[in-house]
Amino acid sequence: MRSLKLTVCYEGTAYAGWQVQPEAPSVQEALERTWRKITGETLRITASGRTDAGVHALGQVASLATETHLSNEVLQRALCAELPPDIAVLAVEDAPPGFHAIRDARSKRYRYQIHNGPTRPVFDRHFVWHVPGVLDTDKMRRAARSLVGRHDFSGFESAGAERASSVRTVSELTVVRDDERSERITIEIEADGFLYNMVRTIVGTLVEVGRGAEDESWPGEVLAACDRKKAGPTTPPQGLFLVKVEYE
Amino acid sequence: MRSLKLTVCYEGTAYAGWQVQPEAPSVQEALERTWRKITGETLRITASGRTDAGVHALGQVASLATETHLSNEVLQRALCAELPPDIAVLAVEDAPPGFHAIRDARSKRYRYQIHNGPTRPVFDRHFVWHVPGVLDTDKMRRAARSLVGRHDFSGFESAGAERASSVRTVSELTVVRDDERSERITIEIEADGFLYNMVRTIVGTLVEVGRGAEDESWPGEVLAACDRKKAGPTTPPQGLFLVKVEYE
Repeated sequence: MRSLKLTVCYEGTAYAGWQVQPEAPSVQEALERTWRKITGETLRITASGRTDAGVHALGQVASLATETHLSNEVLQRALCAELPPDIAVLAVEDAPPGFHAIRDARSKRYRYQIHNGPTRPVFDRHFVWHVPGVLDTDKMRRAARSLVGRHDFSGFESAGAERASSVRTVSELTVVRDDERSERITIEIEADGFLYNMVRTIVGTLVEVGRGAEDESWPGEVLAACDRKKAGPTTPPQGLFLVKVEYE
Repeated sequence: MRSLKLTVCYEGTAYAGWQVQPEAPSVQEALERTWRKITGETLRITASGRTDAGVHALGQVASLATETHLSNEVLQRALCAELPPDIAVLAVEDAPPGFHAIRDARSKRYRYQIHNGPTRPVFDRHFVWHVPGVLDTDKMRRAARSLVGRHDFSGFESAGAERASSVRTVSELTVVRDDERSERITIEIEADGFLYNMVRTIVGTLVEVGRGAEDESWPGEVLAACDRKKAGPTTPPQGLFLVKVEYE
């Protein structure tokens, strides 16, 4: 058996998310079906984490164990040729024996895109969250500082997920408006792991500060309170991209 | 009756084109239906030119004559609120009596986007033509020079359209790669008018030069020959955007 690492790019619009679900299209199901078509093998392909319905990936990482004799390059080309047009495999690489995309992940980076302008977006509508009102990105940037570092992020976790610990280390959190007049705001977060809906709840909280509904000190208070009811709303999925996953 | 000028943005992916067609969705039909819903008026909305199936518009212009008492601002907001998410009305403005979006147009600008890289595009797949092989944009730029100016463009016109004259004046034709390493090539053409499929055939001809299949002097020869069979292929619709239309 060979362990392989796949780097996968997908638009999540048409999918119920990464994970296989009964009677709903998923990225995992499309990949596993295409793998079977190419190699004859029925196997499980595991991603670094599930993405929700409508969430995109620029560099999702998935692991699998295979007996195929096809070269990595042939596999990459065949997968790209056979996959639906909204999924592409960017790379197929050898991985250490037993490589596991979830367990072995050391850090992840997410991006969240906001369209901050009066007219609703047409071409980007599947890739941004539309916030028509004024957002003060300087305030959002200052408010974000209190979230960087090692903290218990249970205040930013949606219910439903059971985890041993809700302590995570956010190594970077940036809020960027392309230029002063731009309607595009991009928030990027890198951490050693993320709780369920953590990125979308952090973004929702920063936007409350940006629109002046809450003070700059508020995200730090939500963090200290460890109570999800205190945070801002969870933002819609289509603005969210899994950018990359890093391994040792 | 008031004459109005609408500036319309749309993604053409889901439409059979601008023009109303039996049993196929069109941008015109969506606009006229939405207009009827808001004002109660059944009327014809005329665009500066039809766009084909899959072609997009950043700033299509349309004209109509109305008896509505709703203000332009209210009309713009109501249209945006009621139109499908892939169509937006950017502006509603008063126009001179008898304003006609086709007849009164003085110039138009089109953009054509090429994705020039080995991996097929995922997020941009509805907005670019994928050309995997190497393209020499310096050659394309030099080849484009012979097309600027006042010429008979019948060599770049698809059959089927009957026009009084095939002489047009191209005021600008640019070929830009964002930076040396970028996979995005953007071709923009401005002219006082365009023949059927003229932009897509000019792009197809320049790409033949870019990939080394034809000399830099070839587009000038196609122009002189006035014979469509001599030009390059018509490129696919999804890379094409109507950028703007200018009036006196």
